[in-house]
Amino acid sequence: MTVQDYQNATPKEIRDAIAKGEITGHTSGMAKGYIQANVVILPEKYAYDFLKFCFKNPKTCPLLDVSEVGEKHFTKYGRESDITQDVSLYRVYRDGELVETPTDIGHVFTEDMVSFLIGCSFTFEHALLETGIPIRHIEEGHNVPMYITNIPAEPSGRFDGNITVSMRPMTMAEAIKATEITTHFKNVHGTPIHIGDPKAIGVTDLENPDFGEPVQFKPGEVPVFWGCGVTPQSVALDAKPELIITHAPGHMFITDVKDSELSD
Amino acid sequence: MTVQDYQNATPKEIRDAIAKGEITGHTSGMAKGYIQANVVILPEKYAYDFLKFCFKNPKTCPLLDVSEVGEKHFTKYGRESDITQDVSLYRVYRDGELVETPTDIGHVFTEDMVSFLIGCSFTFEHALLETGIPIRHIEEGHNVPMYITNIPAEPSGRFDGNITVSMRPMTMAEAIKATEITTHFKNVHGTPIHIGDPKAIGVTDLENPDFGEPVQFKPGEVPVFWGCGVTPQSVALDAKPELIITHAPGHMFITDVKDSELSD
Repeated sequence: MTVQDYQNATPKEIRDAIAKGEITGHTSGMAKGYIQANVVILPEKYAYDFLKFCFKNPKTCPLLDVSEVGEKHFTKYGRESDITQDVSLYRVYRDGELVETPTDIGHVFTEDMVSFLIGCSFTFEHALLETGIPIRHIEEGHNVPMYITNIPAEPSGRFDGNITVSMRPMTMAEAIKATEITTHFKNVHGTPIHIGDPKAIGVTDLENPDFGEPVQFKPGEVPVFWGCGVTPQSVALDAKPELIITHAPGHMFITDVKDSELSD
Repeated sequence: MTVQDYQNATPKEIRDAIAKGEITGHTSGMAKGYIQANVVILPEKYAYDFLKFCFKNPKTCPLLDVSEVGEKHFTKYGRESDITQDVSLYRVYRDGELVETPTDIGHVFTEDMVSFLIGCSFTFEHALLETGIPIRHIEEGHNVPMYITNIPAEPSGRFDGNITVSMRPMTMAEAIKATEITTHFKNVHGTPIHIGDPKAIGVTDLENPDFGEPVQFKPGEVPVFWGCGVTPQSVALDAKPELIITHAPGHMFITDVKDSELSD
């Protein structure tokens, strides 16, 4: 398939091509119009506290779907999926340490595991672009800059830590418009966490993000910060469960649900 | 305190009066402007499946808050509450059978229990009344009529069953307006499940509700059905856990959060 083919393919076609090893890279732009999701896979004994963490932190950890224990599919977001092979690159952590980056997790997935799909900013970025709001990191062709803040997430059991935000520069007028738009995208982070002064949320150096790459500011632009899907991963890693599996950044799970279904 | 005093009291004052046995009846109209919630208390081993049930069924089971295991308070909705004595009348079920209706559950509450607060239609009814939409059961001075439908809830582990709806008669123009209003109250059932034909959702006789009391229709009115907070209780009871404690109908938990904070 060509890039053009990937854009117009169905989620199932893309997932099958990933499972067969025909697609190995980032999923940005694939199966256009369908929601792509962050993935967190944990043993059942952590599932309750993690589900509760998602419920208590909807802006950073907007839960889209959760599998039944040991199941490889999702009843709403991927009925015919196999979470052990439908992501092109995984990260496997044991006791908080990255031990493997496989393209298939059949060898580590056990019957007691639960998979979570968490909303990603790809969805609201499309909506912002359509109204003419610039997305600088897309213009510059790299990953969004992300920063660990001094704002504590609502803890849940062993899951406890500060929230991570992504940042996009825009004018204040655009920031207000972006807030208006993203209030309708509560399942993919919703409205900004902060607009304006980075220090107010404990971010000291915009040039040196904790994850991703920095972006250029144009005159009159302010930083606009949204809750980031890295939060659940980083908080889960801090909790050091004996096993946690996530997608690799940019290698998202492509769901069967359309972007438009998330707007309310 | 008089009824007038109860209306203007703070949630904490009402909860304290309930704990002391000074208030024993319904809580309708008390601590005006504050959210009142349905209560479900379960042993920890059922908590994950019940939390997941709430996540999967937001229109019938809109979760407001959940306690940590063994804790008697809620971090957001009642920081200084004691769930074992702040409800004026409880129902205690063992293996799905009602065994006791105490005014305090100190003697049955154990360290492994988790308490859930679930949104209740009191909140959106205020908003409808303010725009001039009639609420017939309030006009008639009794409980809302509720019906078990043929619509299955999304199952979660052992929690499985059909959803229950509450019904309010209004004109189609009012029904459209009510839909517009309740889209902003997603945490208290949100928009209607159905408008118009009861048979379309498996309700055969409006005169004989499964819970509550029937209401009169005026010419030109249609039945408007909303997801009902009885669903989580009835589904939980069908699951026959060895122990489940709920509030008695109308004897709600009064939270520290204002109605206005639930509108989005």
